[in-house]
Amino acid sequence: MRTSIATVSLSGSLTEKLTAAARAGFDGVEIFENDLLASPLTPEEIRARCADLGLTIDLYQPMRDIEAVPAEEFARNLRRARHKFELMDRLGADTVLVCSSVSPLAADDDALAAGQLSQLADLAQDFGIRVAYEALAWGRHVSTYDHAWRIVEAAGHPALGTCLDSFHILSRSSDPKDLEGIEDIPGEKIFFLQLADAPLLGMDVLQWSRHHRCFPGQGGFDVAGLVKHVLRTGYDGPLSLEVFNDVFRQAEAGPTAVDARRSLLILQEEVGIRALPEPAAPTGVAFAELVTHDAEPVAALLAGLGFARTARHRGKPVELWEQGEARVLVNTGPAARRDGTSLTALGLESPDPAAAARRAEALLAPVLPRRRAAEDAPLDAVAAPDGTELFLCATNRPGLPNWRADFADVPHAPAASDAVRIDHVALTQPWHHFDEAVLFHRGVLGLDAQESVDVADPYGLLRSRAVTNADGSVRFPLTVGAAPGDDTAHARHIALATDDVVAAARRFTEAGGRLLPIPANYYDDLAARFEFADGELETYRDLGILYDRDAHGVFRHCYTHTVGRVFLELVQRDGGYQGYGAANAPVRLAAQHAAR
Amino acid sequence: MRTSIATVSLSGSLTEKLTAAARAGFDGVEIFENDLLASPLTPEEIRARCADLGLTIDLYQPMRDIEAVPAEEFARNLRRARHKFELMDRLGADTVLVCSSVSPLAADDDALAAGQLSQLADLAQDFGIRVAYEALAWGRHVSTYDHAWRIVEAAGHPALGTCLDSFHILSRSSDPKDLEGIEDIPGEKIFFLQLADAPLLGMDVLQWSRHHRCFPGQGGFDVAGLVKHVLRTGYDGPLSLEVFNDVFRQAEAGPTAVDARRSLLILQEEVGIRALPEPAAPTGVAFAELVTHDAEPVAALLAGLGFARTARHRGKPVELWEQGEARVLVNTGPAARRDGTSLTALGLESPDPAAAARRAEALLAPVLPRRRAAEDAPLDAVAAPDGTELFLCATNRPGLPNWRADFADVPHAPAASDAVRIDHVALTQPWHHFDEAVLFHRGVLGLDAQESVDVADPYGLLRSRAVTNADGSVRFPLTVGAAPGDDTAHARHIALATDDVVAAARRFTEAGGRLLPIPANYYDDLAARFEFADGELETYRDLGILYDRDAHGVFRHCYTHTVGRVFLELVQRDGGYQGYGAANAPVRLAAQHAAR
Repeated sequence: MRTSIATVSLSGSLTEKLTAAARAGFDGVEIFENDLLASPLTPEEIRARCADLGLTIDLYQPMRDIEAVPAEEFARNLRRARHKFELMDRLGADTVLVCSSVSPLAADDDALAAGQLSQLADLAQDFGIRVAYEALAWGRHVSTYDHAWRIVEAAGHPALGTCLDSFHILSRSSDPKDLEGIEDIPGEKIFFLQLADAPLLGMDVLQWSRHHRCFPGQGGFDVAGLVKHVLRTGYDGPLSLEVFNDVFRQAEAGPTAVDARRSLLILQEEVGIRALPEPAAPTGVAFAELVTHDAEPVAALLAGLGFARTARHRGKPVELWEQGEARVLVNTGPAARRDGTSLTALGLESPDPAAAARRAEALLAPVLPRRRAAEDAPLDAVAAPDGTELFLCATNRPGLPNWRADFADVPHAPAASDAVRIDHVALTQPWHHFDEAVLFHRGVLGLDAQESVDVADPYGLLRSRAVTNADGSVRFPLTVGAAPGDDTAHARHIALATDDVVAAARRFTEAGGRLLPIPANYYDDLAARFEFADGELETYRDLGILYDRDAHGVFRHCYTHTVGRVFLELVQRDGGYQGYGAANAPVRLAAQHAAR
Repeated sequence: MRTSIATVSLSGSLTEKLTAAARAGFDGVEIFENDLLASPLTPEEIRARCADLGLTIDLYQPMRDIEAVPAEEFARNLRRARHKFELMDRLGADTVLVCSSVSPLAADDDALAAGQLSQLADLAQDFGIRVAYEALAWGRHVSTYDHAWRIVEAAGHPALGTCLDSFHILSRSSDPKDLEGIEDIPGEKIFFLQLADAPLLGMDVLQWSRHHRCFPGQGGFDVAGLVKHVLRTGYDGPLSLEVFNDVFRQAEAGPTAVDARRSLLILQEEVGIRALPEPAAPTGVAFAELVTHDAEPVAALLAGLGFARTARHRGKPVELWEQGEARVLVNTGPAARRDGTSLTALGLESPDPAAAARRAEALLAPVLPRRRAAEDAPLDAVAAPDGTELFLCATNRPGLPNWRADFADVPHAPAASDAVRIDHVALTQPWHHFDEAVLFHRGVLGLDAQESVDVADPYGLLRSRAVTNADGSVRFPLTVGAAPGDDTAHARHIALATDDVVAAARRFTEAGGRLLPIPANYYDDLAARFEFADGELETYRDLGILYDRDAHGVFRHCYTHTVGRVFLELVQRDGGYQGYGAANAPVRLAAQHAAR
């Protein structure tokens, strides 16, 4: 099926929007009237620009407050419509969206509405235009899709059909039963299908719609369920995204358009009309890669934590540090940034690296060039939306290219523990790409997205949402600051799982490492909230270990100081604890601010 | 009455919060538990810090999910409470806030709640502590103030009282009748009063409360009406602000604390417990002052618009340009910034400049030093929250210091028109200070705040809210970008009222001036929406004049190009049109982006 996007979903001038939509691979666009009005291009020039870009103009929108009004008002509306049909003729757009009226002049009179829409369709027909009538969720008298359809049906005009909009429908009811009526509409009378998702917010529906829509798969609506009903009617028009979102309005149009198209590809797969390479969810974290222009502080930190420098890349200035199943690469190559050590790449242990890369590529993830020597293992890698390089790889697994073989062992003392692995990697995200990042990790990598939580940093609220695989061996909490420029959002961290965090913390401090100091007040609060064995709390207090407990189990964790834009965490999960100590995050963040 | 503020209302570390509260003149604070937990200071050190700063600790908060639970759970809660009372003892806090339970364990049993709260109060009493029980608007069984009071009354314990919170009360009902019951509570049983305002948003009350509270006078609640009821009970505790706000969390604590205290001062005046110098709302704009390091482009623009350079300051590099009643100062003095021409000061025609300055000073506006020579008129000036210098002044009015007399006339050709005055000055605001700016202009200057409107810029939504005097002779639309770093938010403009915008625009272009080009599509849309006399629309199109019409009248306007961070607008208001052409703003903004 063809895919389309409303220009209002993207930031910038009309030209920028069209270019971004075409580059992301959309087949067409809905021209949002305000974007046209503000454009210096004539309708003919816009038409030519779209043609040059390979875009069809699938809809012109919106036309408001047309129907069920007194005759004199309707005459004015027809006059207005004629102007717009003339414009559409110049533009080469053959379908117009008419939203159900919100005018105080509109009567609650379906027959009047049908009659006037019929007259409008008569006029439209003269221009070769079809009218798609849509129920706004806050329409004055017509606010449900079935009501809009009854009016269209009553009008019985060949140039009049309905437009279905997932936001307007699903914001009013999430009951699957309420969607079944969609299948009563003949597919050829559904002139258009607009798709948007939204987080489930209990708020005024108009404000919700105008500010908080998002792309399918990024919110809480069952958009796929709705689309399945629509497909069963025989609808064969475009799947078109119409998203009003305050963040997308500010973000660069190019990445937003890619995010949008990826969302539609995943939706098409979900409803069974597009075959994509199967997801091959990662089964572990093969390595995390730090890039730095000065390896010494990172090396000291890793050594203090018990890592051993075990190997060196055969052709690049990259060293491998290992402890148990945890592996960290320290890269001092040309990618090193002046602004300090940063976490720039992850190795994802993949059951089928090549297939995982094919899926990523099909879902518009940039495939990274293989900067490798002839003798290196052929590693597949793609870029996440935040620029993190994801290596889809295998570690010492027969029959698969082995990244580890690119490294030559160096003599080393044994690591401190073989009971360590990477528990999670916290990936802070640039401000504009949070929802996109979640969808990417879910749809492209096959991870599951957990609930979003707010975390109070002393200088602003952060939002955090983890993506994980089924057995919890891959966990990436994605975190975003409250606004651009929030530099707490820039430090990423690697959390190491150990089965004895107290021993690990002690070893680290005895080796001269500094754990993040945690205020004594925090431990007084723990004493109020929980009962501890004799001496237990004192141990935590002495070392700076944080503690959380939920219905499933216990979580103990502590933090190193920050090097550049990276720090490390030691964690111990007991029982079925699945979280990340979010309750402790405000204390940790305050301590990090204080330590700077 | 004493004033207090909850630490959660301010950004930063606890130390930063306390310092900001004290500097702004608060008498006390509520210590929000998370701020204490995250602080490296011990309770004793916090107590000493507060004492040094002259702050009392009026409340420790919150204690949650205490009451109406099974006995075993309550025993755990008492244990937890004992820890907190010990802490409060160290802190020197004698009142604790207990919020009505949201726990699934809580029973809908007022007698049980009263009994357990009584036991809690027994324990508190041993520490010399009072328990203030508050109904959360989303409490599981207790969600209204009168319900909380019935439980407190039933308990009949001297150490148990109630806490009233304006958000929790007014978010549930704005009916004045529902507030009358407050006066049934004996004042001495109201242990605490927390104040917050909020915009009237139709949304989930918990999210509303956690993210969108603001200071009294900045939202839509009748906080003063509520306070009047509370005062009639004989309540004599502090007026304390407790505001959860995503923006304040990010803003600098110092200015936020000043904003907060100003809000309380205005509230105290409103409820009749504080006398402030009367507001003396400005009756006109005496002048707008542009600061520049290169006067030539501004001079060319002003000359093109018909201004004449009429006078020069006797002691400073400031020139006066006049046309009719519009006056613009061009200052090339040391304040000129490298980043281009900017609008940095306004002269406000004041009925009583000295009184206006006294009010501003009483409301914490920084009084600006009078950098003047002995012979200059003694001008009162204060700084607005955005740093704009506001001169409270008189122009050629007998008996008042005359700023105009500081300027010596220079020979000049006559100005183009004597029918011009400043219609409005659009003051873009830094991101974090929008609500503060509105309250400042309203409370300090005595202007009225109009409705807030969203304006779609191609690169993000803007918010705009005008403050005006009663006859519309002073109008300042305040505008803020969607996020910091949005540079569309940096250009300010001066709109000149003329009684013939077509003639004025023609004169400007014939003098070689360039008006902002407006797309032809915009005029096609006007043709669809309105009927015009023959040739009228063509004139607008030729000149780039925008058009709006509402139930009251017609608005025509056009824009110059931007110089540095300033541009000018020509406007003609006919009939009773009171707006600013907001419907045209997206087109104007897009044209400005395109022209850069």
